[in-house]
Amino acid sequence: MDKSIEFYTKLLGLEVLSKQEIPQNNAEIVLLRDPEGKGATLELTFYRSQKNFIQPDYENRLFDHLAFEVKFMERTIAEMQREGVTVTDEPFKLNPTSSLIAFVEDPDGTLIELIEKK
Amino acid sequence: MDKSIEFYTKLLGLEVLSKQEIPQNNAEIVLLRDPEGKGATLELTFYRSQKNFIQPDYENRLFDHLAFEVKFMERTIAEMQREGVTVTDEPFKLNPTSSLIAFVEDPDGTLIELIEKK
Repeated sequence: MDKSIEFYTKLLGLEVLSKQEIPQNNAEIVLLRDPEGKGATLELTFYRSQKNFIQPDYENRLFDHLAFEVKFMERTIAEMQREGVTVTDEPFKLNPTSSLIAFVEDPDGTLIELIEKK
Repeated sequence: MDKSIEFYTKLLGLEVLSKQEIPQNNAEIVLLRDPEGKGATLELTFYRSQKNFIQPDYENRLFDHLAFEVKFMERTIAEMQREGVTVTDEPFKLNPTSSLIAFVEDPDGTLIELIEKK
């Protein structure tokens, strides 16, 4: 994690927004972003007890997924299901106070996370 | 490509910024972005004559890479090389009028594109 933070901050100019423990996954996540607030937020995940992101069929992906914020999770998921989109993880919260998240697949099978901020 | 554009525009609310032919790769790329101009630009690539992004050691990645804009390519690449970063593609242009691009690896081997806009 330290080496990655150094790469993205010193060499690419991002700055660390926050660090967070994800006890469910025995993992630490670090969010980084361009200081000008442009572009996406980059999430680095350090899994202490596994080498990769664990999700069926996605074991060997170094890149886990892209994430998009949605305003209304329930409505978005319902619309996606009507359109035949594969929902791999129905909406859930990592803990009672966190944002609602879900995972779906894009038409090529790329894993997409949806986030409804609390 | 049509199916993917529909997914990212109708279901996730992005809008198409531009479409471009990349004759070198017999490919079409489509750039999409949030209408509010927030977040990253998403690049979808349709390869007519291959299934995946072709780059040694990256054949089976559905997610190709992340891209970052840099102000001074030469300086950035020199600094990265001093730091031991693997440069997989030295700076080049797809055509004489296009931006300067290069590819490097982050500490985990994730492919990172650098772009110095013309």
